[in-house]
Parts: sequence; structure tokens; C-alpha cells
Amino acid sequence: MIYFDNAATTWPKPESVYEAVELCMRQKGANPSRSGHTMALLAGQIVFETRVQIAEFFNIADPLQVVFTSNATEALNLGLKGLLKPGDHVITSSLEHNAVTRPLEKLRSQGVEVTKLQASVQEGLHPQQVEAAIQENTKLIVLSHASNVLGVIQPISEIGKIAKERGVLMMVDSAQTAGTLSIDVQAMGIDLLVFAGHKGLLGPQGTGGLYLRGDLQLDSLKEGGTGANSEELFQPEESPERYESGTLNTPGIAGLGAGIEFIRREGIDKIREKENTLIRQLMLGLGKIPGVLLYGPGPTVERAPVLSLNLEGREPSEVSYLLDRLYGIASRPGLHCAPDAHRTLGTFKHGTVRLSLGYFNTTQEVEGCIQAIATICEQKN
Amino acid sequence: MIYFDNAATTWPKPESVYEAVELCMRQKGANPSRSGHTMALLAGQIVFETRVQIAEFFNIADPLQVVFTSNATEALNLGLKGLLKPGDHVITSSLEHNAVTRPLEKLRSQGVEVTKLQASVQEGLHPQQVEAAIQENTKLIVLSHASNVLGVIQPISEIGKIAKERGVLMMVDSAQTAGTLSIDVQAMGIDLLVFAGHKGLLGPQGTGGLYLRGDLQLDSLKEGGTGANSEELFQPEESPERYESGTLNTPGIAGLGAGIEFIRREGIDKIREKENTLIRQLMLGLGKIPGVLLYGPGPTVERAPVLSLNLEGREPSEVSYLLDRLYGIASRPGLHCAPDAHRTLGTFKHGTVRLSLGYFNTTQEVEGCIQAIATICEQKN
Repeated sequence: MIYFDNAATTWPKPESVYEAVELCMRQKGANPSRSGHTMALLAGQIVFETRVQIAEFFNIADPLQVVFTSNATEALNLGLKGLLKPGDHVITSSLEHNAVTRPLEKLRSQGVEVTKLQASVQEGLHPQQVEAAIQENTKLIVLSHASNVLGVIQPISEIGKIAKERGVLMMVDSAQTAGTLSIDVQAMGIDLLVFAGHKGLLGPQGTGGLYLRGDLQLDSLKEGGTGANSEELFQPEESPERYESGTLNTPGIAGLGAGIEFIRREGIDKIREKENTLIRQLMLGLGKIPGVLLYGPGPTVERAPVLSLNLEGREPSEVSYLLDRLYGIASRPGLHCAPDAHRTLGTFKHGTVRLSLGYFNTTQEVEGCIQAIATICEQKN
Repeated sequence: MIYFDNAATTWPKPESVYEAVELCMRQKGANPSRSGHTMALLAGQIVFETRVQIAEFFNIADPLQVVFTSNATEALNLGLKGLLKPGDHVITSSLEHNAVTRPLEKLRSQGVEVTKLQASVQEGLHPQQVEAAIQENTKLIVLSHASNVLGVIQPISEIGKIAKERGVLMMVDSAQTAGTLSIDVQAMGIDLLVFAGHKGLLGPQGTGGLYLRGDLQLDSLKEGGTGANSEELFQPEESPERYESGTLNTPGIAGLGAGIEFIRREGIDKIREKENTLIRQLMLGLGKIPGVLLYGPGPTVERAPVLSLNLEGREPSEVSYLLDRLYGIASRPGLHCAPDAHRTLGTFKHGTVRLSLGYFNTTQEVEGCIQAIATICEQKN
């Protein structure tokens, strides 16, 4: 099989990720931070070490400001609902995933003011657009680092600078970039960073998280047992306990730690370079096939390794079906949970076929996919 | 090591659970219900099959009414916050975990009326107490099937009958009983059932869920991508999509399915019988040691395999420390995230030592623990 659905979840994972999950379950399978016995401490150590890995990876000063969630969606819900109150204003883009758009719609129905700026398919939001949209009651700018449909990278650092100057917070959804592009929360002015654990960070499904700047406190999304301050009726004040009620996904977190360790050992520049090479090879190869429509930035522009396309006269679902059944190529058709991005693109009705690459893909696989699509196009004619 | 912390999380898991997690990650590691390619369908099949396992296990008519969450705490938050609105009245007991108490305190601060009934340490809530507490605006009764501190089983079926007669919903927290006691949502009149996946159900950490009666609809706790109806601004109406935004913990769900399959293969009666035998052996042995204070129902009363105790003149944390370091016995000291239960018990100041057994414990281990505690008691004198 040729797996080109890495934007949904990366596969395979490094061998060390599988091993870390198994070791955790078999030998360190207690509940972390719930008891003081030896195995509970070992489980707690796994969680803490992964927190440190994440903090170092994103240049977060304090590992305790890293909150584990079950996925990026939960982290976005926690950040958005924990921060925004009726009367607040939030700015976002037309390239966002439903994990941003839908919580914002709910908040809008509760009295939060939402401005959705029309982004460029080639370049994402312009910093000046954001600057012009800031009002007196603007509390937050929330946007994806890169679109999960188009791969277009938004100018986070420039927008972060504006946010800082204007006293507005910036939350970044790095679901498509963490582990693929370098992210430095301090240098980029990111106040809240949402990450998925099971995509570019190469951890297992069931992991994700939120970095929260040390001086910020959010309303909790869930309350419950935190293993500490059990005598209090209300949630503890401190991060991460305030936000992490209930038993964590310790085996998943063990795997996530191993995934990040793998990336740091390989070097993110090497990963980036390989993914860049592959996505350019794919775009150049597909660009030569008559009847192939490619969306988003051109092959010379820096992007996330995600490509949306259509074949003239064919439904995306038909193309994905043929790729899977005839050629063993895993792609994803449709709207990719980001209808606004397709409205921006003009593909809202049928969506696109998305090919998303990862570090473990090869030039042979890319070549195989180009050939397969060429054959499908020929057969139509 | 003698692992007596099964009420926090069971360990070890059946071999088939480790294998299911690994197989899922290595061979079925795509994102379920997000794409239509072969491996995505295999991942989706895992999720659906576990839903069916759970439905059959609890006698739930429609597997689609089983919602996966990251733990029981999230399921309780979803159920309570999704159901209760300002002006509603909810009845609960003084034996509940913070995963019930803390969301209720938050709801109370938003205008929900909460009645916390004082439960008996020996028998839990009396059905008549509940009946007398029902008001015109009572919407829900929420209570644990068994206390995580005392092991006392509450009379769910009797309370369920009253709830039905009075037109009130009943939500049961089965964190300490699912997989250990038989649960039949239809026979017991349970409208919402919360379960932890990683305790008696023998699945991995990072799993849990909520059963929701088919005609009920909750407000969602999180919104986001659901893999279906991507074009809508708001969450889909249908269960489970409405409540399961973001990528699920597929490897964990695979393991949970294997855990339940193991229980069904062994037979829950056989599991129950073994756990009963072990907890009685433990209580009878400890009951003979001078200076040991046992809490909760006596050895002839049906209970969950959880025992709280104290040694005269010793702090619980000291006892747990000695058990761990000198005898390799894993126990848990303190309040166990259930301060109300300790208030009920009169042990709020220092808590208790909790010994919680599982199906993989042995009579030899129980005997070893009795000997260890006898030695600790002697050394004090």
C-alpha cells in the first residue's frame, strides 16, 4: 500500500513508538500521579518526560504549561471556550478546520463576536488584513499554521508580532505542521499552541495537547479528579492539573514522547527537506498530466506536504476509490472537515482529492502515484 | 510486585489487549471514518466492532448510542453538562468521585440546583431518600454504581424504578463496576451509563464512554470535525458523531474491544466469583489483625473488590509507602479523588489506604498482603 493520508494521521510510526506504547502497557501500566507506589511513579515519569520533550521541541519555557488532551480538537475547544466570553471578539481565517469553525459558531451563538477573514488560496491571511480587523474588544486571533486542504502556510510570525503590539492573544492550530515545520512559540509570538500528537509528531492516535502561556488561565472544559488537591470542591488553579481531569492516555503519551524523540534524533530539517522533495516531485509530475487540476500554492512556494487536486470530469470520491482499489494508494476525497477552505477554493460542492505525504514515503511511491493518476486520466479519454 | 491498585487502573491487561493495540497501530493505523480507503475502513471497523461489544455487554439496543470518550471523567462531564440547564434540579450522593462532584459544583454556580444526599457507609443511598428528594424540577439522578473508596454497591435497580415512575432520568457512573458486576441498562433503568475503559473492562488507559438512551440528545462538550456532514457549520444531530469530534483513540478502542471480549469469554460470573473470594479472604485476614480498621460493608455483604483501611497510629501515606518499599505491594493512600466519601466515613483529614483487587490477583498475593500488614502492625507495637 502507498499511504498518502498522512494529514489525517501519519502511518507508519517509527518502530520506537510501537515499542514505547507496549513497554508502557506491560511494565509501567499504573495510573500516573494517582498513587505513590513504584509503578505509579514510573507512569508519572513517562507523562512528565513527554511534557519535557514537547516543551523543548516548541521552545516552551515551562513543561507544566503543556496540557495533554485526547486530540487537537479537544485542545482547540479548551483554548477557545476557556478564553472567550460573551462580548469578546475573535479573528479567524477562511481556511480553518471545523475544529476551529464549529466551536467558534457555538461561541458566536453565546454572544462572542467572530470575524472570519477571507484568506488567499496562495498565501493564506495577509498580516495587514488581520491588523485592520482588530477592534477594541478583540481578545484572540486563531488560525491554522497550514491549511489541511491546501498546504498553504500562514504568516504566523508576522501576525504574532501584530498581535503582541496590539495586546491581542494568538492561538495557532499546528495540526498540519508540528513535526514538519519548526515551531518556536517564543520567537513566533504564539500564546496558545494546539498540536495533534498522531500526525507530524508521529505519536499514536488519542494524543494531542495545548501549550498555554504561563500567565494565562483558562476556564476548564472538564472537571474531575486530578490526583492532587482532592479535598477541594473546585478544580485546582494550577496547570496542567486544572485542565487534565481523569486518567490520561499514558500509553499514547509514551508513544508521543518516542515520536518526538525520533524527530529530534533525525532532525526536523532533514524531515522537512525530504517532505519538500517529495511534495515537489508530486506536484511537478501531476502538473504535466492533462486534465489534472492542482490547487493551492505552486511548486516553488514553501508549503505543508498536503496537495489537493481534481481530475476533470471525475468526482473526487471516484478518483480516491480508483486509487485505492486499483493501485493500493490511500488518499482522501471530500471536504476534509474544512468547508470554508473549499468555499475559498470554489470546490465546496464536491471537494477535492487530498494527497498528504509523510517522512516515510518514498520517491518510488510518489512516482507510482503520478503514473496511476496519469493512467486514470488516459482511461477517461 | 503485588498490584492492588486496580481501582485506579487494572494491571496487567489480558495478553490479547496488548496484541490488539499493537496490531491496530501497525496494520490498521489509519484514521477511522475520515477516508474511504482500505486501511481507513479497517480502522473504522475496529471502532464499530468495539461499539457492538460494548452494546452487547451492557444490553444496549443500538451500538450507535455508545459514545467514546477519553475517560469516564469526560463522559460524566458530557452527560451532566449536556443535559442540565439552569433551573434544573439534580440529585446525587455523598459517595461520589470528584468526576461527578466537581462538574456539579460548576453547574451549581451556573444555576443548576444540586441535592447531595447523605449515603450510608454500609448500604449507599436508600431508594426512599431519593424518592423523597425528587422535586418538580428534578431532571436527573446521578450516582456511582459502587463507591471507589468503600466498595459499597448502591441500589441502582430500585432507584432506577423510582426514577422511571417519577419521570426523572438516571445516570450511573460504573467506573468501579463495569466488567466486575453485571450491568443491564434496560433491566436496571439506566438512561445514561458512564464507563471507564481501563479499569474492570481491561482496556488501555485513554478509553471510556457514555451510553445515552436513544431518544435523548445532549448539548455537545466539544465541536469539530466528525468525518461526516463536513459542510454544516454546526455539529451533526446524530449519535455518536455529535459527541465524538476529532480523531478517536483507535488503538485504545481496539484494546478495549479485546478486553471486553476477554471478559465475555471468561464469563463475568467467573470473574465476579474470583474477585469476591479474594476480597473476602483479604477482609477476613485483615480483620483478625489488632490495630487494623476496616471501612465499609462487612465481609458477608456483596461489594466491589475495593477495601479502605487504616492502621492505628499510622498515616495512610506511611502505610502505603511501607507496603510498596518493603513488600512490593502497590496500594493507594489518601482521598482517592472522593472527599465526600471520606467526609461520610469520618476519614476526611488523612484519608485511608485503599487496596483494590482485580481478576489477575491470586490468593497467594492476598495472603502476602495480610502478612505484610500484620508485620507492619507488630513493628509499631
